[in-house]
Amino acid sequence: MNWKARFSGAAERVADADAVRAILELAERPGILSLAGGMPDPAVFRVGETREAMERVLRDHARESLNYSPNPGITPLREFLAERMERIESVPCRAEEVLVVSGGVEGIRHVTNALLDPGDPLLVEDPTYMVALQIARELGAAPVPVRGDRDGPIPESLDEVCAGLTASGRRPRLLYANPTFSNPTGRTWSLDRRRKIIEVAERRGLVILEDHAYAELGYERPAPPALKALAPDRVILVHTFSKIFGPGLRLGWVVAKAALIRRLGLLKLGTDQCSGALVQRLALAYGEAGGIRTQVERSRPLYRRKRDLMLEALAELPTRRPIERPGGGFFVWVEIGRDPGALLPAAIRRFRVAFVAGDCFFTDPASPAARRTLRLSFSQVAEARIPEAVARLVEAVRDA
Amino acid sequence: MNWKARFSGAAERVADADAVRAILELAERPGILSLAGGMPDPAVFRVGETREAMERVLRDHARESLNYSPNPGITPLREFLAERMERIESVPCRAEEVLVVSGGVEGIRHVTNALLDPGDPLLVEDPTYMVALQIARELGAAPVPVRGDRDGPIPESLDEVCAGLTASGRRPRLLYANPTFSNPTGRTWSLDRRRKIIEVAERRGLVILEDHAYAELGYERPAPPALKALAPDRVILVHTFSKIFGPGLRLGWVVAKAALIRRLGLLKLGTDQCSGALVQRLALAYGEAGGIRTQVERSRPLYRRKRDLMLEALAELPTRRPIERPGGGFFVWVEIGRDPGALLPAAIRRFRVAFVAGDCFFTDPASPAARRTLRLSFSQVAEARIPEAVARLVEAVRDA
Repeated sequence: MNWKARFSGAAERVADADAVRAILELAERPGILSLAGGMPDPAVFRVGETREAMERVLRDHARESLNYSPNPGITPLREFLAERMERIESVPCRAEEVLVVSGGVEGIRHVTNALLDPGDPLLVEDPTYMVALQIARELGAAPVPVRGDRDGPIPESLDEVCAGLTASGRRPRLLYANPTFSNPTGRTWSLDRRRKIIEVAERRGLVILEDHAYAELGYERPAPPALKALAPDRVILVHTFSKIFGPGLRLGWVVAKAALIRRLGLLKLGTDQCSGALVQRLALAYGEAGGIRTQVERSRPLYRRKRDLMLEALAELPTRRPIERPGGGFFVWVEIGRDPGALLPAAIRRFRVAFVAGDCFFTDPASPAARRTLRLSFSQVAEARIPEAVARLVEAVRDA
Repeated sequence: MNWKARFSGAAERVADADAVRAILELAERPGILSLAGGMPDPAVFRVGETREAMERVLRDHARESLNYSPNPGITPLREFLAERMERIESVPCRAEEVLVVSGGVEGIRHVTNALLDPGDPLLVEDPTYMVALQIARELGAAPVPVRGDRDGPIPESLDEVCAGLTASGRRPRLLYANPTFSNPTGRTWSLDRRRKIIEVAERRGLVILEDHAYAELGYERPAPPALKALAPDRVILVHTFSKIFGPGLRLGWVVAKAALIRRLGLLKLGTDQCSGALVQRLALAYGEAGGIRTQVERSRPLYRRKRDLMLEALAELPTRRPIERPGGGFFVWVEIGRDPGALLPAAIRRFRVAFVAGDCFFTDPASPAARRTLRLSFSQVAEARIPEAVARLVEAVRDA
């Protein structure tokens, strides 16, 4: 059977992701130093505490952990997350306003699918998180770029883009934002910019989907408040356990009004019905024992050192413009004088170093701006090997 | 913000599922005996073996269990499942032909999404698994019924439906089938019918998506071979750990040709990226220690007794036609002389018993056939309470 001839439009529209997946697979081969994937450093995992939490779960809740659980998440975890949102993020939140999902991506998917029809624009920063672009494309929605600078999207650009869409009969409905220690740029929107973007969103009737994945991993001054805290009615926040416990749980959550949460839950019936009871119980037990707090506190200095090591080593790399210093998160964004996609095969094969060519983060991957950037992650490679990994990268770029 | 006014077509099309979810939520209240949900009997869970398997995972693979894992599943689990498919189902299978997913539903979703465009028909038995209907509707595909009887879909009906679709310019591309101990009817396609349906599918160029969820839970003679074993190139099989280990893991798998598996994996990047490494490791450790085999062997006699208790008690229920005896699975399908949806509120409130009104399993929930059926699950209620649960149901029906 010729399967490729049978693929739907949706299956065709995700084909580009194959190249990125192939790189990430290659990057995991022995001997490769990977600056590619956004994987946590295994050193941050707290194995002892995880084991203890799991023991409690399988002592006190074994049978319910093995069975189906409520579609929107187990109640005590929703309560825990609601309380935590309020305490840490100053986001007023009730348990009914939390949907437990199987990783932040599932949250992004359901929100996008719930609010956009095929042909609708998804407003995004350019570059932005590639999986948000992929989801929009799969759903038949069209990523539409908003210009930005170091402080975030430019409010006038957002306003113009909305006006242009409206003038052409299309509805600006949703802005996907990754405002704090962004993937891929590492940038953080300033407080002033946050307020102005919200102002435009209010005027234009835009909902904002705030991806909060890296927000707890700040390495210097505290991050500005979440958009959700500034405009609780207009912003849907998606967060994840991946950077504060472990991605191996596949667990995240969405914070939104209860009527929307219920509808997102119906869409979830068609992906995985409910998130796993076992990992939900584990996250709760780990969180209640203080595991998340301790892990975040110990992650920050480790990643800060890794970032600094990477920036120091990158001084050797010829770049088109000075590299920005990310205040948190996992990523350094680099603009070089040539197409990183063309460098990548030799970088991996000959120099044993992997990165992600930046084009996949752009609404137009073929644009000149997309073809001179690369994303480097300092999260995964062991601290001691970061200088070597960057040195390999510098050699690969010089050699090309 | 008026969220309902902002919902997409997809979000509107899943709205009906809210009623079913509400029933399932109600059914979990204290004091209700639930014949509604297809939840395993907690008595089948093997807590000691699960604990031991988890201890091994967190001793030997803790850090990798907490981190991201390969998009299509961890290799040793794919190998384990491939070997098991070959051994148990006589389905020749390589690890590259297995995609690990977060429950069977995720598999159904990705296959449907990969092969159907909006407007395309999804051919189904009528009644069929409601979540397959929901996924089709959410994707904008149109469920199209094929007539059936006790032995499965009628080959001539399938052929006519295909001819009619083709004549009207639509492409019959995919048949969703739940041929063994079906949800909701409990029916099993005969071997002869399997062959004939495959023959029509081959002639008409149809792919078959075989939902294998209940197939290992046969209570009498061995089930006929999987469609996948009879036509490996034409059939995509979706299976789940939910009935052979526990739904709380949210873990299943798809068996298909490698080129299709790779594309389904790309669609999975947009739901949860990868299934959880922790539960994958747990399923592998449990399976390698013989946990699945033991659990299935012990589940069968328990569920067989429960089925028999239910059928015995149901002799008191006035029905439109004799109740069929399911050879396996979780469900008994009943046709009564009135609309079960109208009975349900009082059944729950006054008689403290829950069931699922059958209309949600039909392509046309408003049809007369849909309005006189109900699905009873003998899986969840404790064995000792089945007679009481059915007696309450009989009272509720008589009272109406």
